[in-house]
Amino acid sequence: MSKVKTALIIGAGDDTGSAIAKAFAREGLSVCVTRRPRHLDKLEQLVATIREEGGQAHAKPCDAREEAGMITLFEEVEAIGPLEVVVFNIGANVRFGITETSERVFRKVWEMACLSGFLTGREAARHMRPRGQGTIIFTGATASLRGASGFSAFSSAKHGLRAVAQSMARELGPQGLHVAHTVIDGMIDSNFIREVVPDVDDRRARDAILNPDHIAQAYVDIHNQPRTAWTFELDLRPYCETW
Amino acid sequence: MSKVKTALIIGAGDDTGSAIAKAFAREGLSVCVTRRPRHLDKLEQLVATIREEGGQAHAKPCDAREEAGMITLFEEVEAIGPLEVVVFNIGANVRFGITETSERVFRKVWEMACLSGFLTGREAARHMRPRGQGTIIFTGATASLRGASGFSAFSSAKHGLRAVAQSMARELGPQGLHVAHTVIDGMIDSNFIREVVPDVDDRRARDAILNPDHIAQAYVDIHNQPRTAWTFELDLRPYCETW
Amino acid sequence: MSKVKTALIIGAGDDTGSAIAKAFAREGLSVCVTRRPRHLDKLEQLVATIREEGGQAHAKPCDAREEAGMITLFEEVEAIGPLEVVVFNIGANVRFGITETSERVFRKVWEMACLSGFLTGREAARHMRPRGQGTIIFTGATASLRGASGFSAFSSAKHGLRAVAQSMARELGPQGLHVAHTVIDGMIDSNFIREVVPDVDDRRARDAILNPDHIAQAYVDIHNQPRTAWTFELDLRPYCETW
Amino acid sequence: MSKVKTALIIGAGDDTGSAIAKAFAREGLSVCVTRRPRHLDKLEQLVATIREEGGQAHAKPCDAREEAGMITLFEEVEAIGPLEVVVFNIGANVRFGITETSERVFRKVWEMACLSGFLTGREAARHMRPRGQGTIIFTGATASLRGASGFSAFSSAKHGLRAVAQSMARELGPQGLHVAHTVIDGMIDSNFIREVVPDVDDRRARDAILNPDHIAQAYVDIHNQPRTAWTFELDLRPYCETW
Repeated sequence: MSKVKTALIIGAGDDTGSAIAKAFAREGLSVCVTRRPRHLDKLEQLVATIREEGGQAHAKPCDAREEAGMITLFEEVEAIGPLEVVVFNIGANVRFGITETSERVFRKVWEMACLSGFLTGREAARHMRPRGQGTIIFTGATASLRGASGFSAFSSAKHGLRAVAQSMARELGPQGLHVAHTVIDGMIDSNFIREVVPDVDDRRARDAILNPDHIAQAYVDIHNQPRTAWTFELDLRPYCETW
Repeated sequence: MSKVKTALIIGAGDDTGSAIAKAFAREGLSVCVTRRPRHLDKLEQLVATIREEGGQAHAKPCDAREEAGMITLFEEVEAIGPLEVVVFNIGANVRFGITETSERVFRKVWEMACLSGFLTGREAARHMRPRGQGTIIFTGATASLRGASGFSAFSSAKHGLRAVAQSMARELGPQGLHVAHTVIDGMIDSNFIREVVPDVDDRRARDAILNPDHIAQAYVDIHNQPRTAWTFELDLRPYCETW
Repeated sequence: MSKVKTALIIGAGDDTGSAIAKAFAREGLSVCVTRRPRHLDKLEQLVATIREEGGQAHAKPCDAREEAGMITLFEEVEAIGPLEVVVFNIGANVRFGITETSERVFRKVWEMACLSGFLTGREAARHMRPRGQGTIIFTGATASLRGASGFSAFSSAKHGLRAVAQSMARELGPQGLHVAHTVIDGMIDSNFIREVVPDVDDRRARDAILNPDHIAQAYVDIHNQPRTAWTFELDLRPYCETW
Repeated sequence: MSKVKTALIIGAGDDTGSAIAKAFAREGLSVCVTRRPRHLDKLEQLVATIREEGGQAHAKPCDAREEAGMITLFEEVEAIGPLEVVVFNIGANVRFGITETSERVFRKVWEMACLSGFLTGREAARHMRPRGQGTIIFTGATASLRGASGFSAFSSAKHGLRAVAQSMARELGPQGLHVAHTVIDGMIDSNFIREVVPDVDDRRARDAILNPDHIAQAYVDIHNQPRTAWTFELDLRPYCETW
């Protein structure tokens, strides 16, 4: 009997990452969700929620910046079932003027938002390529496309991640792997935003804030594209966003 | 009783345009399809096919370069039912070296691929804006993003069309209208291609050619996006395309 | 005795175009300057000014949208001396909401800002290509790179012009012709701006407005690049411009 | 008596970096040139050559990835004279398929081509900002703008560097600092290329290879732009390059 196919969500945070995990669980994939070990309790809540909905899920705490741990993670997931979808969804949005940006911050943001994405993509490629199929989606941002005052660290890491995604798409597409990159442009309806932005309820009432479930739907749509018509990149923003 | 909502496909040619029309008919929209009057017989075949499948369709021959005719066309469609989706799908791919490009060709390509798109978008906006909803999709190409030797006329018109789409998206998004632009990158499995490319069957067997039905699915996905997470632009290409 | 080389400035308006003409005259080229016939007096003033500075200049009134007139213009200039530099500098900045943009305006803006540029580039190529040298520079704007609310006509024409420039650069570069495109981003210190913007003097005092002579210098720099290291595109903006 | 102004070239390699150093020395700046300590002999040759030409130069061996050393370097250069120009010119072009790219290579390429550039830009900003003037130029490549099969590490680092440059330009421009980024597209006539490419002499004879002195001229042109008309980005390629 063939094993169930798996989806691995690197950066299954409270909002977007969780919504993506749930969406792929509803597609029938066994979903492995990853966050740093200190968020294990939240990961397990997410797994419980997915199981209550009738889906399959596994908590896989992991620091995505650690090469050895990532190699092991992918092997563990493959032991559950062949990887069909991998999503890299770790952000690291910080804002500092250029002379206030320490080397430590610049490096850490890059390790979280770019190096981890490279390791994710590489390990996904390693397991998917022999089967000639699989979808790898990287979450980008407006900062992936343009720098801005105060965003040297963040936009540098996000530009770097996009280049990894594009290089992989060009290399792996002809081998049957669908690599995609999304450009999330706007505020996401998240725990963090609900704490710091006062008018979230009003925004939600007006649809003026990205709904994580709707982002997740776009990821499922990308995964479901037949290989004669694949998208590498699409942007997502609320209808009323200025851009 | 409320009228059925309509979709208008400008440039409902044999392949992509027809596939898009059929796809929106399957979504329950009454589909109005447009080509130049000399292709009326083919338009009527398309309408017949959609009706056989249980859909609603109307043939609306029209030269999309003619302002007065376009104004009338949109009014006629609105009389059938409120416009929910408008797709502009007219191409005009020609290749001439710069000194071999006549003023007549340069102008004609622009009228077909850009001016017609402007008229389409403007009339769509006129009718949709008072209702604060509707989807307008423009079909672009690789030439929308970069010029190339021999493509001054075509890429100029396609760049111009993309600018119309982007300007409209920025203006009309906050008013509830979803304006999108696709970048079709690669050969489409069309009557024309089947005549001039010898290995089409082989390409089709390998999924190495864009399937019009899969392009159409992407258009339906764009239309179905909730307004908290809209895409302005996405690319579509076969998995094995070099880009 | 060999004839002096010529430069042709299409759109030698009061400010940028005049500054470019003067700059190339100072480089020793015989400068032919073009505006629409109704501005003949201003053209002749410009010619007089250049001659007073010791340069060579000729007034060549011409409607750049008229193919036949443009063909004649280029032949007349070649009769003065071989074309070494051609600059296309006609703008047509208008702002209208999409539903307020008439077909007439959309077409006229395109004819002025794009079709004229195509005719300019094509005729320049025709005369320069047999000699395997020459520089053709197109003046672009921020609207060449992105659409914006209210700018469907202008950005469409400017996108179209940039595609012509890029297509020509790719075709003609290997044949020895240097085709370039500038992206002017910001307010230019011009007669028009001096009339409508109240704080021009203050801006000028702070260098916060593009100086036409400095734009012209960039054009001369482009022309003087050796062919091992050519620029296709550069942007120009005041140091304090937000972008 | 006021001290001579200084230029600091980070990555003063045999070819482009040396040419840039010589060019700014000819502009009358005292040039400080930096390479890794193991290339001290070559740095000293370069210094000797510049001095023979009548210029001022100083060898400053330094590993640009080391924050503490970079802070010291900038202080030493400021002690010689106020920094007027800083050029970051370190490359790290490697090619590996995605699954052959080790974490160590990915990190090292980033440290050389991106982190070092960030440190360079930050320290330059720190010293130049209080004076409200200075030019900072980053050397980019085609890989700064697009990823490609086999170039995930290199294009990721170069994309990241470009984002640093663009973020700095937007932040520091209004404060009087000119930050620019060049896109070098094509083979440079360098020691390395002369060893691995058989037809370099033929390319040189045809001008079909980037001449480092001509690249350097573009950098001097950027530095000499008046602040009403600054360029952030320009591309440089041989006339015959396919792009």
